[in-house]
Amino acid sequence: MATFPEDMPPALDGGSIAEAVAAVSLVDHHCHGVMREPLDRAVFESLLCEADAPGQWHGSLFDTQVGFSVRRLCAPVLDMAPHSEPDEYLHRRAELGVDEVTRRLMRATGISEFLVDTGFLQDRVTTPEDLAVLAGARAYEVVRLESVAAEVIAECSGNTFAQTCRARLEAAAHTAIAFKSIAAYRVGLDLAPERPSDADVLIAAARWESEIATGEPIRLNDRTLIRFLIWTAVDLGLPIQFHVGYGDADTDLARGDPLLLMPLLRATADCGVPIMLLHNYPFHRHAGYLAQVFDHVFVDVGLAVQNVGRRGAASILAELLELAPFGSVLFSTDAFGLPELYYVAAMQFREALATVVEERVVQRDWSESDSRRIVRMIGSQNARRAYRLDS
Amino acid sequence: MATFPEDMPPALDGGSIAEAVAAVSLVDHHCHGVMREPLDRAVFESLLCEADAPGQWHGSLFDTQVGFSVRRLCAPVLDMAPHSEPDEYLHRRAELGVDEVTRRLMRATGISEFLVDTGFLQDRVTTPEDLAVLAGARAYEVVRLESVAAEVIAECSGNTFAQTCRARLEAAAHTAIAFKSIAAYRVGLDLAPERPSDADVLIAAARWESEIATGEPIRLNDRTLIRFLIWTAVDLGLPIQFHVGYGDADTDLARGDPLLLMPLLRATADCGVPIMLLHNYPFHRHAGYLAQVFDHVFVDVGLAVQNVGRRGAASILAELLELAPFGSVLFSTDAFGLPELYYVAAMQFREALATVVEERVVQRDWSESDSRRIVRMIGSQNARRAYRLDS
Amino acid sequence: MATFPEDMPPALDGGSIAEAVAAVSLVDHHCHGVMREPLDRAVFESLLCEADAPGQWHGSLFDTQVGFSVRRLCAPVLDMAPHSEPDEYLHRRAELGVDEVTRRLMRATGISEFLVDTGFLQDRVTTPEDLAVLAGARAYEVVRLESVAAEVIAECSGNTFAQTCRARLEAAAHTAIAFKSIAAYRVGLDLAPERPSDADVLIAAARWESEIATGEPIRLNDRTLIRFLIWTAVDLGLPIQFHVGYGDADTDLARGDPLLLMPLLRATADCGVPIMLLHNYPFHRHAGYLAQVFDHVFVDVGLAVQNVGRRGAASILAELLELAPFGSVLFSTDAFGLPELYYVAAMQFREALATVVEERVVQRDWSESDSRRIVRMIGSQNARRAYRLDS
Repeated sequence: MATFPEDMPPALDGGSIAEAVAAVSLVDHHCHGVMREPLDRAVFESLLCEADAPGQWHGSLFDTQVGFSVRRLCAPVLDMAPHSEPDEYLHRRAELGVDEVTRRLMRATGISEFLVDTGFLQDRVTTPEDLAVLAGARAYEVVRLESVAAEVIAECSGNTFAQTCRARLEAAAHTAIAFKSIAAYRVGLDLAPERPSDADVLIAAARWESEIATGEPIRLNDRTLIRFLIWTAVDLGLPIQFHVGYGDADTDLARGDPLLLMPLLRATADCGVPIMLLHNYPFHRHAGYLAQVFDHVFVDVGLAVQNVGRRGAASILAELLELAPFGSVLFSTDAFGLPELYYVAAMQFREALATVVEERVVQRDWSESDSRRIVRMIGSQNARRAYRLDS
Repeated sequence: MATFPEDMPPALDGGSIAEAVAAVSLVDHHCHGVMREPLDRAVFESLLCEADAPGQWHGSLFDTQVGFSVRRLCAPVLDMAPHSEPDEYLHRRAELGVDEVTRRLMRATGISEFLVDTGFLQDRVTTPEDLAVLAGARAYEVVRLESVAAEVIAECSGNTFAQTCRARLEAAAHTAIAFKSIAAYRVGLDLAPERPSDADVLIAAARWESEIATGEPIRLNDRTLIRFLIWTAVDLGLPIQFHVGYGDADTDLARGDPLLLMPLLRATADCGVPIMLLHNYPFHRHAGYLAQVFDHVFVDVGLAVQNVGRRGAASILAELLELAPFGSVLFSTDAFGLPELYYVAAMQFREALATVVEERVVQRDWSESDSRRIVRMIGSQNARRAYRLDS
Repeated sequence: MATFPEDMPPALDGGSIAEAVAAVSLVDHHCHGVMREPLDRAVFESLLCEADAPGQWHGSLFDTQVGFSVRRLCAPVLDMAPHSEPDEYLHRRAELGVDEVTRRLMRATGISEFLVDTGFLQDRVTTPEDLAVLAGARAYEVVRLESVAAEVIAECSGNTFAQTCRARLEAAAHTAIAFKSIAAYRVGLDLAPERPSDADVLIAAARWESEIATGEPIRLNDRTLIRFLIWTAVDLGLPIQFHVGYGDADTDLARGDPLLLMPLLRATADCGVPIMLLHNYPFHRHAGYLAQVFDHVFVDVGLAVQNVGRRGAASILAELLELAPFGSVLFSTDAFGLPELYYVAAMQFREALATVVEERVVQRDWSESDSRRIVRMIGSQNARRAYRLDS
């Protein structure tokens, strides 16, 4: 009847998986730039996680998984003992200077390619080019659809919005590696799947223009226009990234469940365009399901990996890998501002991947050669293929 | 104050739990038939998991948890080393012939009873009787409500639909072991709990008839008629299975959350009819909650168990068992087409159950005699009781 | 590149973490009273978990995680071997007498403060004062908003409801430690965030009064009045507890997802009032997210901890701690009726906390001094600070 695998050949030493994981040059398929100015403790804490700032009730934001991870992982890179106290750490950081700290941490990530979203507070952080130099790596631009739309509406009328926007995105597609939508932040992911008609786009653009004329800040919150942007991006053939799940208090997390995207994913299944679901936590099992039933869907647990601690990172990666085909899983940091976040994300991702895969090898569930192959796919090759990085 | 259990008597050797688990003849309370024809690699891959077929982006569907599990577990049954390459595996499979492969794998499952849903692609797979012979086991028929309705509407008018349907289900109840609804696939699980009126059923049946008359394919998508079918089944007293959660891209997973069934579960709590929530992943903790607060609700993590790998299977079974009373948990494979899936499901379920229970015995949380009792309940006795298999 | 921490200093012996956890005097920030009368097996089982009572299908409710935990943990406190059979356990319980059993179990919890919700079946259980005496601890009252509203509408007219209710809550605020809302049970957590107008409250109170006049039972189900109660409590400055997630069949779990509270949490972020999200399971990762992005949000996994077994308790606490800042996590039992539940909750919480933290120390992720600090925060200090217990 049920035969348990006692008589299988002994597995090779799992330790070598950790070496394989450490050796992979990671592709960070979604991140932002780093800040170049010195930061005081309050600002540093406000950049650590998705809380706006430390407040009166919870105490220091260093008392979080990510705060503990920064002290554990980054302190040694700055020549300090792990778990150094926050003030000591920040003192040493200031002593070395932000450029030296950034160079040390970014180069220690082992990331060879950064795909940089330039649509968020771009004036406060490095450009992709500067990031590449600091990290000793290559960088590519990811163009945020909603930011392009905001630029366009500021310059032209509702009448010419669609045409100008399309032209701007066509031009961007020549240099950018991908597009990105933050529909989850603005209107939620329950988007009607149809391409909106030209007439509907015209009406919506006119409405937006008139709202701005009354003094509203320029911020795209219109479902029709966001759908227009997505379909324009689909026409241009580049991969499209979607913010999904975990973000700051400005998102409405319940409307960021990736299952809400199912109609749009069905509608785009045959367009030849990969759809990248970013972050996904705490809905990462939902994302894994979507990656299994839609061949054009790629998934990650970026941003979460650096925020949930070492055990959490291994758990959520394992949960993502329950249903997601191994060919659909990517690495990203979604790091913004602090070089510490790229380093913690990369290290904790490597630890998680090594833990998850090693356990399979030790239990003889996976062969060692398959395991090494899967490590390379998830760390690098899936992203290289989906973004056509080698062409 | 808090006394930790250092001074408790030593637990018995947990290894014997694995033996107890291996010794249980499983009741597979929900599955389909197997295919009898030879299959090429593309078709084999398309049957492995819930993806329609391998596509351009993710590579081979053997690069999934279930693909790796097939290579680990099934290859030895075909006299090969575990982790044999897919092409070698399929070559050996063809060499032995599908009947021999099916006999070997099905008999190695240790399943003594199969409850077979005959409502899906029945012309492509074995009947319950043939499955029983191949597997050396007993088989029972589960009648899919929506399939009966489709047969009836094809034969009669909207006017006589309700009466004919009721008669057909009454007749089926004499030979079937249970009914099944795929409401989750067709209209979602947020069903109004009331029994629909005869007048409403008449109107809905007439509408369906007229849609078919205009050339629409015969496919039941009407909430009123689906509720009519469910209440007709309740009247007949057999257990009713519901597809919940995980399925292919054709389901709308967000509408397949079992929590949406709460109103119907409240309405049926005193009808004396067990309600079986199938699959449930990724909402299996929700299902466990429902099993605790509704005595007539039974739950499983079928289909998921074979798809999520060994670690995943242990995790989701443990999560289901957080709230679900031990008397409410069942085993199913939901396997379709490939004998490999029955075998992987049975083996991975046994591994998961042994892991979850053994850990409790080793930590002295459960006594060994309780643990053996719970193993027998979950593997077999709960299903025997709920389906009255011994009467 | 990636450097794994092989050359870090050896961690101190993790065993001392268990001692630190055992030494913390816990603050149970949400519980109910205990029953003083002898209980037969059927009643005892009906109080064990969230099932109403044992039924025909699942067998004894002792065959649940909490049933096994009671036998494991409580039997030794009554001088019996762990895993004693239910009937033996109940026989010994009757032999010792309910007061002796209550004293033994309550004092063994190591809880120093009980915050007692007096709004549910208060006539069947001990008052906070009696509970304090039995447990040798301090007790405080948590006033349930909906219960106060029901008292008020029974005594006065819809016309004077708002004014009387406000006065009653003002008076209560002088002696109570917190308010509590069961909006999740009555209308769901998707509450409009605005403070309702006086006119709307007047209309809603008049409607409620007239419903009661027609013979409806006095039960507050009105969104406007519940929002009025919440905002009145906000004005009074005490912490406000919300039932979230896990409860009995009377709640609609899908409407108890804490993410639905986001608009109200945004609206109350600057009011200086802590919001306590109780239970949260199975949405505890959602709750952890809210605790990260809202400084005034505190979270626990009470009620679930005693219901999900030792492994489950460690899993859900770890999952809560993925995003929740360490300064935001609280302990509660939500125990009602049975002293066993306070003891199982306290013991299983300590086991879970020790497991989660020890693993971090053993892997050298956290320093031992940080770990001891976090243990004290979660077990006691966060609650002392949020409820101003020492002022």
